[in-house]
Amino acid sequence: MSTKTIKEVAGGVCAPKGFKAAGVHCGIRKNKTKKDFALIVSEVRASAAGVYTSNLVKGAPVVVTREHLKNGYAQAIICNSGNANTCNADGMEIANAMCGLVERVSGIPSDDVIVASTGVIGQKLDIAPMEEGIDSLYASLGDNSSDANEAIMTTDLVPKTVAVEFTLGGKICRIGAIAKGIGMVCPNMATNLIFLTSDVNISPELLQKTLSDDVKGSFNMISVDGDQSTNDTCCIMCNGLAGNERLTEESEDYKTFKKALAYCTVRLSKMIAKDGEGATKLIECTVKGAKSLKMARVVAKTVIKSSLVKAAVFGSDANWGRVLCAIGYSGEAVDPQTIDVDFKSKKGVLSVCRGGFGVEFSEDFAKIVLSESEISIIIDLHLGKQKAVAWGCDLTYDYVKINGDYRT
Amino acid sequence: MSTKTIKEVAGGVCAPKGFKAAGVHCGIRKNKTKKDFALIVSEVRASAAGVYTSNLVKGAPVVVTREHLKNGYAQAIICNSGNANTCNADGMEIANAMCGLVERVSGIPSDDVIVASTGVIGQKLDIAPMEEGIDSLYASLGDNSSDANEAIMTTDLVPKTVAVEFTLGGKICRIGAIAKGIGMVCPNMATNLIFLTSDVNISPELLQKTLSDDVKGSFNMISVDGDQSTNDTCCIMCNGLAGNERLTEESEDYKTFKKALAYCTVRLSKMIAKDGEGATKLIECTVKGAKSLKMARVVAKTVIKSSLVKAAVFGSDANWGRVLCAIGYSGEAVDPQTIDVDFKSKKGVLSVCRGGFGVEFSEDFAKIVLSESEISIIIDLHLGKQKAVAWGCDLTYDYVKINGDYRT
Repeated sequence: MSTKTIKEVAGGVCAPKGFKAAGVHCGIRKNKTKKDFALIVSEVRASAAGVYTSNLVKGAPVVVTREHLKNGYAQAIICNSGNANTCNADGMEIANAMCGLVERVSGIPSDDVIVASTGVIGQKLDIAPMEEGIDSLYASLGDNSSDANEAIMTTDLVPKTVAVEFTLGGKICRIGAIAKGIGMVCPNMATNLIFLTSDVNISPELLQKTLSDDVKGSFNMISVDGDQSTNDTCCIMCNGLAGNERLTEESEDYKTFKKALAYCTVRLSKMIAKDGEGATKLIECTVKGAKSLKMARVVAKTVIKSSLVKAAVFGSDANWGRVLCAIGYSGEAVDPQTIDVDFKSKKGVLSVCRGGFGVEFSEDFAKIVLSESEISIIIDLHLGKQKAVAWGCDLTYDYVKINGDYRT
Repeated sequence: MSTKTIKEVAGGVCAPKGFKAAGVHCGIRKNKTKKDFALIVSEVRASAAGVYTSNLVKGAPVVVTREHLKNGYAQAIICNSGNANTCNADGMEIANAMCGLVERVSGIPSDDVIVASTGVIGQKLDIAPMEEGIDSLYASLGDNSSDANEAIMTTDLVPKTVAVEFTLGGKICRIGAIAKGIGMVCPNMATNLIFLTSDVNISPELLQKTLSDDVKGSFNMISVDGDQSTNDTCCIMCNGLAGNERLTEESEDYKTFKKALAYCTVRLSKMIAKDGEGATKLIECTVKGAKSLKMARVVAKTVIKSSLVKAAVFGSDANWGRVLCAIGYSGEAVDPQTIDVDFKSKKGVLSVCRGGFGVEFSEDFAKIVLSESEISIIIDLHLGKQKAVAWGCDLTYDYVKINGDYRT
């Protein structure tokens, strides 16, 4: 099928049938103008799946959510920003209490609740502001995806959301999503917080497999600073209200769903990379001609993660030697003598390296190409047919500023 | 033996008997006040050993040096800064020509010459300035370690040198060294350029083994930006003029030599880390209680490399959650519930984490401890008895500035 049948729509997580969202300020953050408490609820119990940080130091909410999704079903997502509820002695207790608050106001069993927290690590998360705020949060439920989006943001400068519409067997279906990105974005799975909703009817088993596969080519392919958060969580709830025939195997309809999901996750990945802490430019690195998909992915990711490449892009400097250098230490068995490198942007394509050696280019044209806000690095390894794309951002003064004193 | 028998002396690479050095400006760099061409010569042929970058994209000089040291002997080191002679079609030709220049002026066979280049990658290195400069370089040979040191520097702010004296079987022996560090300092072996000289009498086989072991605990344990250079080279020449009985096995005298070498390489490692691009602080990370030496080293190195930890240290922010987080994604099987973390400086020790959970501390005292220029992060994994130390630096605005436009 063509992607023409996937069209973007408004509404974020509330775009699919049967989902409501809310975001309020409850008092975890001192700044009263910043929402810090979010809720997403489905009218009916939904098939649900999640992927989580592979960091051994895990936030308590990650442990609780994982447990709650073991049976493949959920009906609500509760999330706070301002505190990650990680490395706290009472972390599990607080995460469970947050689910209990949802049960109290909505009647949704607490083990059908997905819980997430984001913010500083190692500071006690006080349940009191959430206990006080849960009623007004629940009362605010409506077509308020952007409120929920705002409430999960930390140092994000822009909200990240997408929603799409497509048809499965004649039924109109939708997927919606909100995400927060920013620093510590170098997951080996989903990144930070991404909440997806859909009215597609799909079995929990197939949904989990789809999400696990999807993140390998989307959220796993982004890097902001190479650090991996303790709280990375990507969850999806599919409530079936679109009325399509239940997806249980890899049918044609399933492929459409999978494509629509990938559309959303890749869009969010780029948004997350572009809004990396202090970033002024999105870097997209395409690696082709790889022997294996793994080789393509590892090389693309290594280039995106190189501080020297990132700083060169910030400075609009066509320092392709740093790209070669990063390819060389990726750990993959590349052949330096067969590597081609181009830089590309809206302003054109700049060929800088052929067969591992530099080619002459105009420094003036290089500045023009690299001064754009979206820069592509295109690498051909000439070893095979596999391809991968990774996304990252430049390294700037502001990254240092933001992270030099995050807690205060 | 105690380290009391190892004492620091002046003289750098010229401290050991029979070594002369020189550094001049030959014209590779436009700035005429910056030396760019270095030579170190031993009176007699010396046992020699080297460790090199494991980057698959290797500078031509690395390939040539490796070849020249295969027989375990060398007598001179020639090095230029300003251009790495890497990713150039004529790279091998130029690197060989540099060795030929040494042969021409000194009569030392070109295959007894160690060659190294450092600077920008992918720009043709012109042999002409070196052809013109070699005579004056050779004529300048003398007790000029600091000139050679200056000539191998790139964005280094301070020269890095050390020399020590010790005795083997009653004979006074010395080791001297110069190094350049700066960005791209995250080797999986020796970092950037380190040239060591010694008058110790030792077999080439034992020397190579000693150097290969040594770097695992010294230059392999430092990181500035996680990038690994294409030109990393650490070489040592031992000319035997101290007159000690030739070291051929792991005797007591050998242990003294090994200790003296480690003294030099650890000193240089700290100097390199502290002078990382844009760095304002040296970070020393000690990991104890590890199950294996590998676990200790990997965890220490992961913490040192974390951009978020580095930025927090820059901001004097006791954000220990980031330390826990980095430990968690190190890939080693740590137990988050048994991890203790302290920050330490001249001003005192700040305990921040016990058993994976935060402990209360005074933010005022934290600022005092972390505002020092040398910060220790001390981690106890409580899993075993192995220990390792890694060195790095903070991440600052200036790192970004320096690397945003390095070529111009």
